[in-house]
Amino acid sequence: MITLYDLAVEGDRRPSPFCWRTKFVLKHKGLAWRDEPMGFTEKEKIAFAQSQTVPVIHDGAKVVKDSWAIARHLDEAYPNNPLFADETALSHARFIAGWVDSVVQPALFPILVGDLYDRVRPVDQAYFRESRGKRLGTTDFAAFQKTAREKGVAAFRTVLEPARRVLKEQTFLAGKKPAYPDYALAGSFLWAHIASPLILLEADDPVHAWRERMLDLYDGMGRTAKVA
Amino acid sequence: MITLYDLAVEGDRRPSPFCWRTKFVLKHKGLAWRDEPMGFTEKEKIAFAQSQTVPVIHDGAKVVKDSWAIARHLDEAYPNNPLFADETALSHARFIAGWVDSVVQPALFPILVGDLYDRVRPVDQAYFRESRGKRLGTTDFAAFQKTAREKGVAAFRTVLEPARRVLKEQTFLAGKKPAYPDYALAGSFLWAHIASPLILLEADDPVHAWRERMLDLYDGMGRTAKVA
Repeated sequence: MITLYDLAVEGDRRPSPFCWRTKFVLKHKGLAWRDEPMGFTEKEKIAFAQSQTVPVIHDGAKVVKDSWAIARHLDEAYPNNPLFADETALSHARFIAGWVDSVVQPALFPILVGDLYDRVRPVDQAYFRESRGKRLGTTDFAAFQKTAREKGVAAFRTVLEPARRVLKEQTFLAGKKPAYPDYALAGSFLWAHIASPLILLEADDPVHAWRERMLDLYDGMGRTAKVA
Repeated sequence: MITLYDLAVEGDRRPSPFCWRTKFVLKHKGLAWRDEPMGFTEKEKIAFAQSQTVPVIHDGAKVVKDSWAIARHLDEAYPNNPLFADETALSHARFIAGWVDSVVQPALFPILVGDLYDRVRPVDQAYFRESRGKRLGTTDFAAFQKTAREKGVAAFRTVLEPARRVLKEQTFLAGKKPAYPDYALAGSFLWAHIASPLILLEADDPVHAWRERMLDLYDGMGRTAKVA
């Protein structure tokens, strides 16, 4: 049995975008797993993996940290329903994961940070305040988020343009069926969806229709997640 | 024999990023072609294609406009060395072409526009001044470019981050061998390379090493192009 260490916030909500990638990958591969929730400051729970961040998995004797390394490991260890069947699939996944990490996540963080802070477990608030405060140069997350949203929501929609162009033409970023590129981007939308009531997308945006499909995927795994 | 209508500027330089995509595709497919140079205002040359822009190709009786449509046509008509062998290859190419069109090209245009204007054929300068002037809100392209470069070169390097992450891990965006994703991005670099002496990349950037490989490709087709 695989154990997944998954970030938990107040009310046992599970917002981590990178843990969502792993959950989609596990479902894609048809693998069952056991969840191990972990608060921001319970880092001793993943010390065995020499990791400061989740996801971390325990797969039998094997310990793997980092969502990309976990996907590569699972795809090698369990050949069923390959994610990276060839170099092209690997290259495509790598580009989109890098795009999400370097462009999409940074566009979302400032417009969500106040809502994220409100939902962190009380015991983790000081940690969140210090670590995120250092990144943003302020700990008044509510005010920062309010200002950021003035231009940030429109900017976020613009950032999605490369995905939008693809999703005008096809059902998923990976083609007719979802694969790692979809899971990488969906992780960020799940993060936003679980942490904040903010309306990110216009109803007629092809990305909106795709997000609905991603929420429905795997028996509505995303849709039934506890939200803000 | 295929005829390619290719944008020509002063000194018969060929800067069009979208025509470069087509030239790479033709080489990839092992196809010979005849060039038909065309200035910005010689639109009557491509009127037969109901197109205002190049590339346009004449392939026997078939006329195709738009670099993406041309690539799709050539890949179907000539099955050798497929560009889009499966849905994954098509999805990957679509995403990266959309990313280049919506992010990379707009990041390059303001920092190149003065140099581009200087290299347009004298007879095409009025057309360029009017059409690009409308887009930028000024026709003092030299001043606009100078201001744009203050932050624009660094911003352009940041924009390349998703490509950089892939190129740290593999030789080409498509994997071990180049394919449409590489041609889409290389077209923009050829555009810059041919139109401007501006140094865009730092020497230790993995994108720089990749660009060198792209310039060398197909007997140095890019490297031997007439430059600014």
